[in-house]
Amino acid sequence: MKDCIFLDNITTARVSDTAIAAMMPFFDGYYGSPVMPHEMGQNLLPYLEKSYRAIYSLFSAKESDQFVFTSSNAEAISQVMHSVYYTVSRKTGKTHFVTSSIEDAASVLAISKLQEEGCTFEMAKVGSGGHVTLDTISEAITPRTCLISISLVCALTGVVQPIAEIVELCKLRAILLHVDVTHAVGKLFVDIDELGANFVTFNGEQFHAPKGTGGLFCRGASLLPLISGEDEEKRLRGGPLNVPALIGLGQAAIEAESNKNLYCTEVARLRDKFEQQLNESYPEAHIFFKDQERAPHITTIAFPGIRNEALLYALSRKKLFANIGGGPFQQIERVLEEAGIDHVTAQCALSFSLSKETQEDEVDRAVTIITDAAKRLRRLSKVLL
Amino acid sequence: MKDCIFLDNITTARVSDTAIAAMMPFFDGYYGSPVMPHEMGQNLLPYLEKSYRAIYSLFSAKESDQFVFTSSNAEAISQVMHSVYYTVSRKTGKTHFVTSSIEDAASVLAISKLQEEGCTFEMAKVGSGGHVTLDTISEAITPRTCLISISLVCALTGVVQPIAEIVELCKLRAILLHVDVTHAVGKLFVDIDELGANFVTFNGEQFHAPKGTGGLFCRGASLLPLISGEDEEKRLRGGPLNVPALIGLGQAAIEAESNKNLYCTEVARLRDKFEQQLNESYPEAHIFFKDQERAPHITTIAFPGIRNEALLYALSRKKLFANIGGGPFQQIERVLEEAGIDHVTAQCALSFSLSKETQEDEVDRAVTIITDAAKRLRRLSKVLL
Repeated sequence: MKDCIFLDNITTARVSDTAIAAMMPFFDGYYGSPVMPHEMGQNLLPYLEKSYRAIYSLFSAKESDQFVFTSSNAEAISQVMHSVYYTVSRKTGKTHFVTSSIEDAASVLAISKLQEEGCTFEMAKVGSGGHVTLDTISEAITPRTCLISISLVCALTGVVQPIAEIVELCKLRAILLHVDVTHAVGKLFVDIDELGANFVTFNGEQFHAPKGTGGLFCRGASLLPLISGEDEEKRLRGGPLNVPALIGLGQAAIEAESNKNLYCTEVARLRDKFEQQLNESYPEAHIFFKDQERAPHITTIAFPGIRNEALLYALSRKKLFANIGGGPFQQIERVLEEAGIDHVTAQCALSFSLSKETQEDEVDRAVTIITDAAKRLRRLSKVLL
Repeated sequence: MKDCIFLDNITTARVSDTAIAAMMPFFDGYYGSPVMPHEMGQNLLPYLEKSYRAIYSLFSAKESDQFVFTSSNAEAISQVMHSVYYTVSRKTGKTHFVTSSIEDAASVLAISKLQEEGCTFEMAKVGSGGHVTLDTISEAITPRTCLISISLVCALTGVVQPIAEIVELCKLRAILLHVDVTHAVGKLFVDIDELGANFVTFNGEQFHAPKGTGGLFCRGASLLPLISGEDEEKRLRGGPLNVPALIGLGQAAIEAESNKNLYCTEVARLRDKFEQQLNESYPEAHIFFKDQERAPHITTIAFPGIRNEALLYALSRKKLFANIGGGPFQQIERVLEEAGIDHVTAQCALSFSLSKETQEDEVDRAVTIITDAAKRLRRLSKVLL
């Protein structure tokens, strides 16, 4: 969309032009399938290989790590839970799962589905920093815990979760660890070695890959297919390979890797500038988690006295797009309340997320639009009270 | 690929140009997600609505039929088995599944996976016509049968299975019916009402939709999500909607509907011409199932004395691409042996599949290439013997 200011890059991001260009020949000329024993299939292999290599490289994965190309992070998460249930819970009786109280729908629902199989789960509390702690995770686990499932970055607040501490605990207690890096990869340094997780899942579209792409890395644990099929993806995912999408994901991975520094510097600078200017032009605005380690592209801001839905729609009418949760995400007010923020303030918060495509003048205009809308809504709410 | 003669349209087909064109704006300009409450999401709704309507129309589905847009037929099939297991088997103790002995990997493996849950299954035999019969299905079912799962068209032979008879049996015995229409839709008249199945699944790429598309219709049965998530697809499939792919599938559905007659007339004529010319130029060739009801675009032909792998590769070197099974399909020799064809002949068979894009001169050239290759390989095998 032309002329809009898109600050909802946690939901989706524009597909990169080079990723689109990379995909195009595979819709038309190279439309074969790698299962074909003839040239139309075999010709694809070097291109697929290049894509897989780019994806492995973005995650600093080793060749020995298993990788499954999926249609989304949600599919990857469902496959993790399915695999852990059948390969661990059913065999060992360890039927307890732990996640955090701010996880999004895909994780929470995939875990809660296993209740039908007699599994139980606990959602570890987050502290005032907006993240779980070693203490809250320790409180949540039991001798029967088989898996801890945590997002590296909370989508709505950008707060980074302390995975390094959790890894130690998992090793000590022989618990598997799943980390969803959807909102971290391409923005923070995501290295499977350093992360130390057994399962790492992600969605492609947040780093400008085409929709319908995601993935699952596995190390030191067993995987089973969620979708049954024959030889595809080393028997870990049935169904014909979506060749153009994999090529697009590979190209986006190459770009994400080379843009990592851009996120840590330029995008972070624009996010900080956005926060600072907004504080100056609308001093009532309250920026959350500024003293926490955060992803460089996300900020959560409350506008006291203004219901976030009202502000979201007012901004939308000016073609500025933000996020208040819902859909695949938790509601932002719930995420903030979990972090101890009072209900009234939490209801006034919006999440803004930049991308590598966000321009300096968009940030300037966003500050003006938000300030104007907030002042108008504030006057209105004061008149109404 | 330029200059090739592509007769492996059961594995995949070239994406239609108009489907690609329809998708493009949704990679770039309209890159929002329908879960967004603002304009970037809401603007998509009329386009998505149009796609869903086109898909419903292609299958003559009613508004009351449930539909799930999936990433493939394999995913749709896994969801069917998952749903039947949890909503029927677990509740009623009906844990027996029936499929046919010529079904492809996705069905067979999705069913056999349920053995871990104490389910059992039987593969109904096919007769000399290459299809199951009311008798073989009746023999396979038990009082505990919950589901019969059959493909409307056998991919490798094109033979149409007698669904109408099976439907009656299902009604009488209160058994659910799943029909995979991947190789029928757009080629034969596929009407959910007439079909009478509870679950109808399909893959998009066989009717020139983009890869990574498939679907599942449900009527008179219960569906559960295979991929957990929030509000997406009416809570029946988690993960962000692959908007461009759905738009592409919708456009391909519009074209498939308007091309149905083309398949029944022109494509059938070319397939018949191909068979006839081949019989004339290479009389040893044996065409299977000519007296059976077949999909109009598929033919299975044996070249006695020549191993099908050798011929497949010889043709491939001349840029003519055919199929001998494997990958997601059964091996063609196994499918033919199930129909009572002797092992030696079955090993000499190839499957050729045309599409609406197949040209008359391609058929002519194919006959020449196949005849030359078969004669050469036949001489060679006689020398070797």
